[in-house]
Amino acid sequence: MYEAGDVRVIDVPDPSIVEPTDAVIRVTSACICGSDLWPYADLERTEEGRPMGHEAIGVVEDVGPDVRTIKRGDLVVMPFAFSDGTCAFCHEGLHTACVDGGFFDGLATGAAQAEALRVPLADGTLYPLPVSEDHALMPSLLTLSDVLGTGHHAAVVARVKPGDSVAVVGDGAVGLCGVIAAKRLGAEQIIIMGRHRDRTDLARELGATDVVAERGDEAVQRIRELTGGAGVHGVLECVGSEAATLTSIEIARPGGGVGRVGVPHYDAVPLAQPSFFKNVTVGGGPAPVRAYIDELLPDVLDGKIQPGRVFDRTVDIEGVPDGYRAMAGRDSIKVLVKP
Amino acid sequence: MYEAGDVRVIDVPDPSIVEPTDAVIRVTSACICGSDLWPYADLERTEEGRPMGHEAIGVVEDVGPDVRTIKRGDLVVMPFAFSDGTCAFCHEGLHTACVDGGFFDGLATGAAQAEALRVPLADGTLYPLPVSEDHALMPSLLTLSDVLGTGHHAAVVARVKPGDSVAVVGDGAVGLCGVIAAKRLGAEQIIIMGRHRDRTDLARELGATDVVAERGDEAVQRIRELTGGAGVHGVLECVGSEAATLTSIEIARPGGGVGRVGVPHYDAVPLAQPSFFKNVTVGGGPAPVRAYIDELLPDVLDGKIQPGRVFDRTVDIEGVPDGYRAMAGRDSIKVLVKP
Repeated sequence: MYEAGDVRVIDVPDPSIVEPTDAVIRVTSACICGSDLWPYADLERTEEGRPMGHEAIGVVEDVGPDVRTIKRGDLVVMPFAFSDGTCAFCHEGLHTACVDGGFFDGLATGAAQAEALRVPLADGTLYPLPVSEDHALMPSLLTLSDVLGTGHHAAVVARVKPGDSVAVVGDGAVGLCGVIAAKRLGAEQIIIMGRHRDRTDLARELGATDVVAERGDEAVQRIRELTGGAGVHGVLECVGSEAATLTSIEIARPGGGVGRVGVPHYDAVPLAQPSFFKNVTVGGGPAPVRAYIDELLPDVLDGKIQPGRVFDRTVDIEGVPDGYRAMAGRDSIKVLVKP
Repeated sequence: MYEAGDVRVIDVPDPSIVEPTDAVIRVTSACICGSDLWPYADLERTEEGRPMGHEAIGVVEDVGPDVRTIKRGDLVVMPFAFSDGTCAFCHEGLHTACVDGGFFDGLATGAAQAEALRVPLADGTLYPLPVSEDHALMPSLLTLSDVLGTGHHAAVVARVKPGDSVAVVGDGAVGLCGVIAAKRLGAEQIIIMGRHRDRTDLARELGATDVVAERGDEAVQRIRELTGGAGVHGVLECVGSEAATLTSIEIARPGGGVGRVGVPHYDAVPLAQPSFFKNVTVGGGPAPVRAYIDELLPDVLDGKIQPGRVFDRTVDIEGVPDGYRAMAGRDSIKVLVKP
């Protein structure tokens, strides 16, 4: 990406091992992420361009001499953050705080909307899959690299438990995965907040029990009506705007939790006093999706959950610029890239 | 209190049963609270005056016809909020969100810096004590009405667990009780942040392992040094200012928790982006101290914890105005009132 709206497919040198802990993977599936739309809207012009994409499944082509568990030929999930797998934070399951870790976007390693890329800290980062690269569930498996784990993180942080009422703010791919996660954790009432009919229809199929298309005060009013006046136990904030955060706090029940996974485009969390007097907890951040794969993978392989349904368009590498246009224009929920 | 700085002891009619669920208690011990210092600093002039005090132990003098479990002659703790004990929130242990509940300050019921007061919803609110009114541990038992439960709430919300590093922001009575609570929950390192030597000395006796007298960036730097660079697992925010909240978020370790119990005197929680990228959770609010008495009372009666040590001055009713002056001037940590 060279600036907002300017995505180009160019030839670059093949990636190769630089650090002894690296792997190089050939990308078999990648994605365009909702978060890629932020630079697509506001990136300033850059001469070098910015490599894009942080979600992938691929085949390991090469490994550095210090790589122990990942082998050539492995089919692997590449989470959106790399991590050493050995530091205190990784041991606690917070791989996105890894002391040696980082995020793929814009890195010298290259990025995932490509035929291949270099992956740092291969042993700690990559997750080998027990299937072949033409497996029918590949789109669902691909969501383990970001959106499924991110929706799950929002639900975990919001402390969703069996019988709860939950609201999901945002009807993008992460919000839809939030619906899946809330249902999987036993929520009884799942309210999707969004105004794109195709998305909220899909949300219903994935487990949403109610749809709120209103925004602002009207949305708050509607959620109160749907929850006997008190609000919801858990809110999954999957947008990242101040308005969405404000609504999230307003619709939370006393003692409830807000799980933020939309990258915040605001400086302070509003409603410091109402959230206090309601004892509402606000948490969240970049999801440690690497940690969640152990828990989520079996349900994906069993077909119990179908997060791959968030993909409604597939492009090849040449089609990536069109994919951005489709997602930015809300003509597509999420684009799958098959290099 | 008639306005900031103007506290008067006046004669009022004796309280009596109004609602059938009321009790009237004769106050045997009460307190001046750190939160009383906010109106003492900024209350606008009022003709009627505002009854003050929300923490008490007393003897039940009368009960309404619908009171079932509380009896005349019972010695009871009166938590700072009243609650029905039967609604969904009370059942969940969040009595400060009781649908029929409320706070004592400024109520028509009268308040606790008095010889007697009317207590609404007596069965749900009052907690009978298994001791007599001259018991030696009375000061410690009195803290069950607010500051001990409030410090404990901060620690619970910050998810303090065995082995954790914890910082307590604020060296008032609640902060000191936060030290007790953090130690009780197994924290290994407990850093008290405050600059009153007498208070931080007491904090050390109660379990603090380190004292940080610095503020702002210097305090953050110092906490990082004390925690190997990462910050603390849990922060107990016992002040309520924006600066204290900002520091709290800065010193939290990735994945850590901030428990707010200082009544917030700010509109938005700062550092929305840093708290997100660190996956720091911010929660808290008015402590459901009624819910915590079951857990905390045995340790008070056993003498395992000594929260009564926060009292460093005792006054009679006539001495209440002097008590306010002493606390406002930081000559006293917390004042016990013996009517």
